[in-house]
Amino acid sequence: MLPYLTTEYGNPNSAHAYGRAAAKAVATARRQVADLIGAKNPVEVVFTSGATEANHLAIVGALAKRPRGGHIVTTAIEHKAVLAAVQRLVDHHGYTSTCVAVDEHGRFHPGDIAAALTPNTVLVSVMHANNEIGTLQQIAVISQLIAHRGILLHTDAAQSAGYGLFDADELGVDLASVSAHKLYGPKDGPKGIGALYIRGGTLLTAQQTGGGQERGLRAGTLNVPAIVGLGAAAHLITSETAPSPTQIRALRDRLQDKLLEAIPGATVNGHPSRRIPGTLSLTLPDAEAADVLDHLPVTGSPAS
Amino acid sequence: MLPYLTTEYGNPNSAHAYGRAAAKAVATARRQVADLIGAKNPVEVVFTSGATEANHLAIVGALAKRPRGGHIVTTAIEHKAVLAAVQRLVDHHGYTSTCVAVDEHGRFHPGDIAAALTPNTVLVSVMHANNEIGTLQQIAVISQLIAHRGILLHTDAAQSAGYGLFDADELGVDLASVSAHKLYGPKDGPKGIGALYIRGGTLLTAQQTGGGQERGLRAGTLNVPAIVGLGAAAHLITSETAPSPTQIRALRDRLQDKLLEAIPGATVNGHPSRRIPGTLSLTLPDAEAADVLDHLPVTGSPAS
Repeated sequence: MLPYLTTEYGNPNSAHAYGRAAAKAVATARRQVADLIGAKNPVEVVFTSGATEANHLAIVGALAKRPRGGHIVTTAIEHKAVLAAVQRLVDHHGYTSTCVAVDEHGRFHPGDIAAALTPNTVLVSVMHANNEIGTLQQIAVISQLIAHRGILLHTDAAQSAGYGLFDADELGVDLASVSAHKLYGPKDGPKGIGALYIRGGTLLTAQQTGGGQERGLRAGTLNVPAIVGLGAAAHLITSETAPSPTQIRALRDRLQDKLLEAIPGATVNGHPSRRIPGTLSLTLPDAEAADVLDHLPVTGSPAS
Repeated sequence: MLPYLTTEYGNPNSAHAYGRAAAKAVATARRQVADLIGAKNPVEVVFTSGATEANHLAIVGALAKRPRGGHIVTTAIEHKAVLAAVQRLVDHHGYTSTCVAVDEHGRFHPGDIAAALTPNTVLVSVMHANNEIGTLQQIAVISQLIAHRGILLHTDAAQSAGYGLFDADELGVDLASVSAHKLYGPKDGPKGIGALYIRGGTLLTAQQTGGGQERGLRAGTLNVPAIVGLGAAAHLITSETAPSPTQIRALRDRLQDKLLEAIPGATVNGHPSRRIPGTLSLTLPDAEAADVLDHLPVTGSPAS
């Protein structure tokens, strides 16, 4: 990222030589992100300021399909940004929404999603992996169940993409949100940058317009250093030098075993096996989360 | 910015020690920006991904005053992001808008703004300095004309703030957009970060919600390194080491004189004197802008 914060400071939308150098770096990053998330064409990757913005663009952008009175299906365990974007459609655009419940492992069932569809449904927004307990969902099954009905499928893949577990094409989604600072650990992907995967041919209403950047889907001068950082993080994950999901899982499981052994009554939250490798959520009897946080030593790599 | 890209990578909304260090850096930057733009209280500064987003938050945010059927006054020379945000209210929320014309120097007249007001007017959005020709507008006069009528006054101050020419309190605006990469030259303020000044007590509808950051007005993990960079740029401008507007104006005028002398028929666009110091817009007879750009040498500091 550093050259793009110092000597290579061009605006990629400028026609001069500085601009062209920046545009080239952005193109490389776009391909690196496309490679990570299984986008066939880099043009399907639109850079945003993070997953919160990507979620809003995907969900409020469904206005392109139906300006008023549409219906959205989502779940009880979505990230707050997803639920907030759905609420915006309800509050300002006459939409209705259905929130599907989850089981004791934090999993929603594809049949429940399908059962919630109505003739007005324009979008299903269901996360790929939960941000607190890590449970992975059956997105591919859902995409098959709702196929050929003209309904958009969006998934928040901010938690899963960093383990190379998310493949847009394989899972059959139309829209997917990712965030750089959830890739390759919070220490490595920079804050303030993310992307929305938009399958070719998908129409969305842009939320931030003006300068025409990102094919008119997201206006504003591109954050070149952060985009380069997101691309580099995506590339690191797919390179052989990165710790494999198996290695990360082994470390997580070791921590889990030690904690369960040391703390009587502690239990693991989330699905026992269908969980992203780097997430561990525990219920500790007789302990307040804030108190535990206050006593954590200031070393190592904290979760953000 | 560098420590916040490497060792100080905490999320300022996390309660652990890493988070607290990041939160402290964000608080410092917020005060630095407040000092630059004349905000009495740092809490009046809300960080965004840039001026385009700040303009959208200010304008579409006026939905808080009137969810449907409001009226907005703007001008013919606003940045595209402002005009696009106004269009969003027209297209999706039943708003109407009036676009006030400018004179041969690119100035709109306060009386024309006042004459455009209707009983439904909720917002006047008029830029402080134009992004192409640099003409400065009479914002203080406009703020006096529309005072005590319950109408919000927004100004895009992205071009003027970098010269220390913008003072929210002195000009009497309710909302003002700034962008880091327009501060202290495109080389110094980072891309991907900006801020909206929101006068205390002003109600806005957030455009991006979820995690509750920025007092619920702008959700999403804070871009700590870029915020620190914006704060540092704001601080540099107000420090004694920065080139003064007078020095910058002298350089601009020298370039202007040389070009007018060398190119017969060249004319200056914008107001002869009421112009920001670092902007020079010329009409060159018999020359295409793209051709001129292609022949610029790759040295020095290009405009973004």
